[in-house]
Order: sequence, then C-alpha cells, then structure tokens
Amino acid sequence: MDKTNLSHKFSLFQDFWSPKVVGEINESLVKLAKLKGEFVWHHHENEDEMFLVVKGSLLMRFRDRDVRLEEGEFIIVPRGVEHLPIAEEEAHVLLLEPKTTLNTGNLTNERTVAELEQV
Amino acid sequence: MDKTNLSHKFSLFQDFWSPKVVGEINESLVKLAKLKGEFVWHHHENEDEMFLVVKGSLLMRFRDRDVRLEEGEFIIVPRGVEHLPIAEEEAHVLLLEPKTTLNTGNLTNERTVAELEQV
Repeated sequence: MDKTNLSHKFSLFQDFWSPKVVGEINESLVKLAKLKGEFVWHHHENEDEMFLVVKGSLLMRFRDRDVRLEEGEFIIVPRGVEHLPIAEEEAHVLLLEPKTTLNTGNLTNERTVAELEQV
Repeated sequence: MDKTNLSHKFSLFQDFWSPKVVGEINESLVKLAKLKGEFVWHHHENEDEMFLVVKGSLLMRFRDRDVRLEEGEFIIVPRGVEHLPIAEEEAHVLLLEPKTTLNTGNLTNERTVAELEQV
C-alpha cells in the first residue's frame, strides 16, 4: 500500500479529457484528469461524480446556472444532472466516481474513453 | 448544488479527530478532519478509507511499516488493515469513506465519534 503524490501523477500524462486511474476505493475509482477547452453536455444515469480542482480553475455549467471552481474547491454532481465542464485554461482535477462511470455518461462519442489507463 | 471550498470549511471547526461531513457521493461521505497527536490503532472491517492531506503532514503507521504523507498526497487504506494515524503537528485531511464507517473502526472508545456533524 503506497501513497500517491498528485503532482507526480499529473506529470506522467499530457492528454486532456482522458481520466487516469490512480486509486480504487470500495466500489469507486479515484482518477486524475487534465482538462482544457469545453467538454460535452452529459449526465450519469446512476452515479454521483466528484470534481476537486487541484490546479487551475473549472467552470461547471448546468442547465440553469454556472459554478466556477477554483483550486481547493470541489463539487459533487448528483446522478441525472446534466453538466458541461469547461476549462478556459488548463486545469487539473481529481475525480471520484463509481467504477461503472463512463466519462461521457449517457453519450458515446469521440470523447468517450472506455478503457481507462492507470498511471 | 453548491461548490465546497476546503479552506473555508476547515475554518469552521477547531476540534481534532472529529471528522465533519462536507459531501455525500453515492454510498460514501466526504469528510474533513483536523488531526493532531496520535490516534488509536484500528481497522475497518468492510471499508476502504482514503486520506488526502490538504495541509501539513501525516504519518500513517502500519504494523509492518510507516508511510509519511505530505500535502497533496493520499493513501487508501484497504479494509481490514490496521493503521494508526499520527500528526506530529496539526494536519488537515480530506477523508473519503462509506457512510457506514466509524472513525475508530473496530473499536468503540472515548475517541469514537458516532454522530458526525456537518459543516
């Protein structure tokens, strides 16, 4: 059982919108992702999803409002709620979500990453 | 659905070894705790537990070795593994664990906090 250093793990990959698995806890996975630009509107049918901003800033757009997250802030998006993550500048986030969660939720498209890498 | 600022939440309580609930995600709770001094040896029968150091440093003692965690580092303690958290100086940690998790795991003693506050 080893510790995980977030900065080190983030240094091991460069691709955006492609979450990397860094830990397994109960029925969930801890993932790290680098975000830049705009993702796609989606929701997760049965899974709540946590976004903790480790570096930079993240705009989480909902159908009825926007929430801007800065470093050291998190949001839990409840299952079923449509959201659109946008990172105007490169942002680094820690994600926590069930093992069953697909990054694009209810959609499958060119942004979908079905097989997650571990770093 | 609001965002949560970790520094702000930590400013709202001062007691040590008394995790505060700051979020609910799937079957788990996100908690914040201030640690100082030595806790008690314990394990959790059925729950993995994640410790992410937000401020300071945490020594996690296992029966066969020690792991020192600094700011920006986390460890997932698997179910069944005995551990003893020690904070030589005040440390702030984010915990993630199932709703069923008791802070003292298999023990019930004066360090047990059965009813967690929310902040």
